[in-house]
Amino acid sequence: MTEPATPAELTALARTMIPILDAMGLEVLEVTPHSATARIPAEPNVNHFGAMYAGCLFTVAEVLGGLMAGFMDVPGGVPLVKRLEIDFSRPATTAVTARTTLSEAEFDRVQAEAIATGKSNYELVAEVTDEAGTVVARTRGFYQMRVMG
Amino acid sequence: MTEPATPAELTALARTMIPILDAMGLEVLEVTPHSATARIPAEPNVNHFGAMYAGCLFTVAEVLGGLMAGFMDVPGGVPLVKRLEIDFSRPATTAVTARTTLSEAEFDRVQAEAIATGKSNYELVAEVTDEAGTVVARTRGFYQMRVMG
Repeated sequence: MTEPATPAELTALARTMIPILDAMGLEVLEVTPHSATARIPAEPNVNHFGAMYAGCLFTVAEVLGGLMAGFMDVPGGVPLVKRLEIDFSRPATTAVTARTTLSEAEFDRVQAEAIATGKSNYELVAEVTDEAGTVVARTRGFYQMRVMG
Repeated sequence: MTEPATPAELTALARTMIPILDAMGLEVLEVTPHSATARIPAEPNVNHFGAMYAGCLFTVAEVLGGLMAGFMDVPGGVPLVKRLEIDFSRPATTAVTARTTLSEAEFDRVQAEAIATGKSNYELVAEVTDEAGTVVARTRGFYQMRVMG
């Protein structure tokens, strides 16, 4: 990602890269090298009881890792998710927003290590909140920036 | 669930209860009180590189918990997922199948405890394999059968 992209452009890109995000109505709200925020609406992501399905809460948080990695300048680098832990604290009955951050030092370390050795592991913690601001889920994702080919 | 249901009936039920499963094309292959198997096709669940999206691998495994819990005879009981850990071991480029089991003793314990105290925690380990039989992901889900209302 060499040029700044608008949230609408990033949303379109994410939905093209991962078509099921289109079915979920995922919107990218903001991405910087050090933070990412995305949102999914209640419909069609809630279950028959009106509570957001666990797999959709997983998705809105997990996808942040790939979005932010787009800023890393690693030739041939692809972000892979190796493991993800998610804790569900409350049912969500509204749209939900997921947010994560990555420190500048950690961003620089991952970028440099991936260029030097072909791969670098990093962790991202994300919080998913409902429209009232209540935390409904927390995730810890274990990613790897890997140089392919 | 008081009557035996066919895989087609269970598939329809799952997609009605959780509409995004319909978008993913989830199929329930088999459910007994002690095992559950479900499958999702490659399309529309793969990303732009042809690899199954992490959130879809999560879903095909996570959903097994709710399917099997349908056999528990707990008045007012609803299965909730509290936490899920997923390890991604290989990219999947085909349809994938998830399978889990629950011992008869554990099934009986959860059912009895939920009736007696209003809730009971249990764990489910699932394996997700591709069409060649390669394990692409493993999950450990922490569920609770809870009596509502």
